[in-house]
Amino acid sequence: MKIHCSKTALMEGINIVQTAVASKTTSSFLEGILVEAEETLKLTGFNLEIGIKSTVEADIIERGSLVLPSRLFSDIVRTLPDADIALTAAKNFEVQIDAEGSFFSIRGITAEGYPLLPQVDQGIQFVLPQNILKDMIKKTAFAVGLDQHRVILTGCLIESTGNELNMVAIDGYRVAWWKSFLEKGTVPMKVVIPGKSLSELQKILSSSDEPIRANMSKNYITFNTDKYMFLSRILEGEYLAYKSLIPTEFSTTVRFETARMLESVERACLVTGEDKKMQIHISVASDRMVITAHSDNGNYKDMISVEQEGNDIEIMFNPKFVQDALRAIQDEEKAKICFNSNVHPCVIKPDEGDSFFYMILPLRV
Amino acid sequence: MKIHCSKTALMEGINIVQTAVASKTTSSFLEGILVEAEETLKLTGFNLEIGIKSTVEADIIERGSLVLPSRLFSDIVRTLPDADIALTAAKNFEVQIDAEGSFFSIRGITAEGYPLLPQVDQGIQFVLPQNILKDMIKKTAFAVGLDQHRVILTGCLIESTGNELNMVAIDGYRVAWWKSFLEKGTVPMKVVIPGKSLSELQKILSSSDEPIRANMSKNYITFNTDKYMFLSRILEGEYLAYKSLIPTEFSTTVRFETARMLESVERACLVTGEDKKMQIHISVASDRMVITAHSDNGNYKDMISVEQEGNDIEIMFNPKFVQDALRAIQDEEKAKICFNSNVHPCVIKPDEGDSFFYMILPLRV
Repeated sequence: MKIHCSKTALMEGINIVQTAVASKTTSSFLEGILVEAEETLKLTGFNLEIGIKSTVEADIIERGSLVLPSRLFSDIVRTLPDADIALTAAKNFEVQIDAEGSFFSIRGITAEGYPLLPQVDQGIQFVLPQNILKDMIKKTAFAVGLDQHRVILTGCLIESTGNELNMVAIDGYRVAWWKSFLEKGTVPMKVVIPGKSLSELQKILSSSDEPIRANMSKNYITFNTDKYMFLSRILEGEYLAYKSLIPTEFSTTVRFETARMLESVERACLVTGEDKKMQIHISVASDRMVITAHSDNGNYKDMISVEQEGNDIEIMFNPKFVQDALRAIQDEEKAKICFNSNVHPCVIKPDEGDSFFYMILPLRV
Repeated sequence: MKIHCSKTALMEGINIVQTAVASKTTSSFLEGILVEAEETLKLTGFNLEIGIKSTVEADIIERGSLVLPSRLFSDIVRTLPDADIALTAAKNFEVQIDAEGSFFSIRGITAEGYPLLPQVDQGIQFVLPQNILKDMIKKTAFAVGLDQHRVILTGCLIESTGNELNMVAIDGYRVAWWKSFLEKGTVPMKVVIPGKSLSELQKILSSSDEPIRANMSKNYITFNTDKYMFLSRILEGEYLAYKSLIPTEFSTTVRFETARMLESVERACLVTGEDKKMQIHISVASDRMVITAHSDNGNYKDMISVEQEGNDIEIMFNPKFVQDALRAIQDEEKAKICFNSNVHPCVIKPDEGDSFFYMILPLRV
C-alpha cells in the first residue's frame, strides 16, 4: 500500500472515524482504524454499536489495506507539519509515515480480522439538511431513558408522515419532541435509533444545510455525506404513542425570559445537587414566579417577573429536568411554561413557533 | 456579621484563596473558606502546606467571622447576577446571600476551630515585580525533584547576592537556572521553597510589573500584594552548590529554531511514550541534526537544519527532559544546545542572553 495525501484531509478523516473506535476492549482490531486504499482512501472505526467510514482525498499509488492503532496514528498525524504526507506499508504491516523530513514507522496488523460493517440494503431513504438533523438531536437526545429494562426508550424516535417530521425522546418522566414541516418531504417512515449513537452523530454533523442521506434496512441505519458514512443499530419494538401524551389545553400559561429563568434554575441546582430525589418548588401568582429549593446544603429563593395568563399555580419538579429543557431552548429569547394543575404534566416551549417542546411530569408532594 | 460587596470583588477574592483550600480531608475547617469581617473583609484558605489570605473591598456593616463550605460558596457567588451582594450571618452561622432578588442561605461553622496561619515576623524582606517572579517560577519549578528522600530538591532555591537574583531547580538529572541582574537589588538571602507552593503562587501572580513583597522568617515565607498574602513553608537543609555543576566551556555549540526542534522532540515523545527509560538519540554533523527514537510503538526520525560550531556529536537523552527545557524557552525564536561529549552534561539556552538555561545529563548507552 502506498498513498499520498494532505495532512489536513487525513486528520479530518481520522477525527471523523475516531468516535466510533472502541477504547477499552481486548481486540486490537476494534481499537484500531481500518485503512483501505482502493479507488479512494477509506478509514473505518467500528465499536460494534456504531461504525463510521470516512473518505479521504488521496493519490493511491499502490492499493492495500491494514489496521493501525487509532490513538498513536491520530497523535502522529496531528503533530506532523502541515504538508503532504506519504503513507507506505510493507508486507509485514510496518507503515512508514513521511512528511517534510519527519519520518515515523509504526506497526499495523492485517485487515483480515477486522469485522465487516453490516450491509445496509437500499431500503427506505430520506434526505435532510445537516443543520436540521443536528438541531433535532441536540434538542431531544438528552431526554432518552437510561433504563435498560425499557430498551426502546433509550432511543429517539424519528417519524415522518411525509411532510411532517418528528423526533421524540421519552424517559418516563419527560418528553422532548421536535417537529417540523419540511418543504421537501420524506417518505413516511418510523425508526428508533439509540440516543448514544445520535449524540455521536451530532458531533460530526456540520452546521451548514448540506444534505445528509439516511438509508434504512431492518436492523441498521446509515447516514451518508460526501465525506463519511455513519452506521448505527436500530432499536426493535413498538414506541410509545407519544402524541396522545401531550396535553394541548392549559389553564395557566406563563411567559418568561429564557436566560433569566435558566440562570435561576441553575442556581437552584447548586442547592439541590445531583440527588434525583431533590425538587424545586415553583409558584406563580400576580405576574411573579417564585422559585425555591431546600436541601441539607442550604436554601434558595428567587423571584422572576413573568407574564401570567390564567390561574395561579404551585408545583414541584425535578430541577434537572427543568434545567435540561431550558438549556435546549436557550437560543430563544422568550419561552413559556403551561400548566393545568400541580399533578398534571406541564409543557415548556419557545414563546413563538411549535417546532419543539418539552413535557415534564411534576413531582407529587 | 453583615457585609455588602460587589460580586466581581468577592469572586476574585474567592478564586485567589481557593487554591489553598484542602480538597480531601476529614476537616470541615480545612475544606472551608474563613470569612472575616473586621476593618476589611478577608477570606482565607489554608491546607497546612500553603495558606492564602485575600482582601476584598466591602462595606462592613456588622463585624464577625465564620467558615463557609468552599465549593458551594464559590459556585453560588459565580452564578449570582453581576450586582451588589449582601452577606448576612445569623448567630447559628446560617448565612444569607442576597443579590437582586436571588436569595441563598447556606450553613457555615464557627471560625473558632479554624487553624491559625503561622505568623511571619518582619525578617528578611525583598520586593520583585510580579511578572518577573511569575517568569522565574514558570522557567524552573517544573524541574524540581520528586524524590521524597531528598526533600531539599523538591524545592526551588531563590538566592540573591544583592543585584544578582537566581532561581534554581535540580532533580538529580537536570538543572533549571534562572538568573538576572536587578537594577533595584534585594538584600542578600537564600531560601528553598517547595516547587508545589511556587506553582500555586504562579497561578495567582499577575503578568504586570506591579510589585510583590516577600517576607521571611525561619520556617515560613509570605508573598504580599494589595490583594492577598500567600504563605508557604520553607524547606530546611543545605542546597546543592549549583554554580559548580554547570560547565562553561563547550566543544560543540548547535543553534536551532526553537519551535522546529520542540515540535520534533514532541513527535519523538509520541513514540517513546511516558516510559522514563526511553531515550532519544541526537546526532549532529555537517550543520544537520538528526533526531531518532525507537520503541515497541514504532520508530521516529527527523532531520533539522542547524548552525553547528565545533565537533560532531552523537548523544542520548531522556526525551521528556529535552521537551521540558524547550517548552520553557519556546518564546525565544532561536536557542542553542552546547555539548562537550556524550557523557558530559549539555546545556540548552536561548541563543541570546544569559537569563536562564538548562543543564541535562545525557543517558549512557
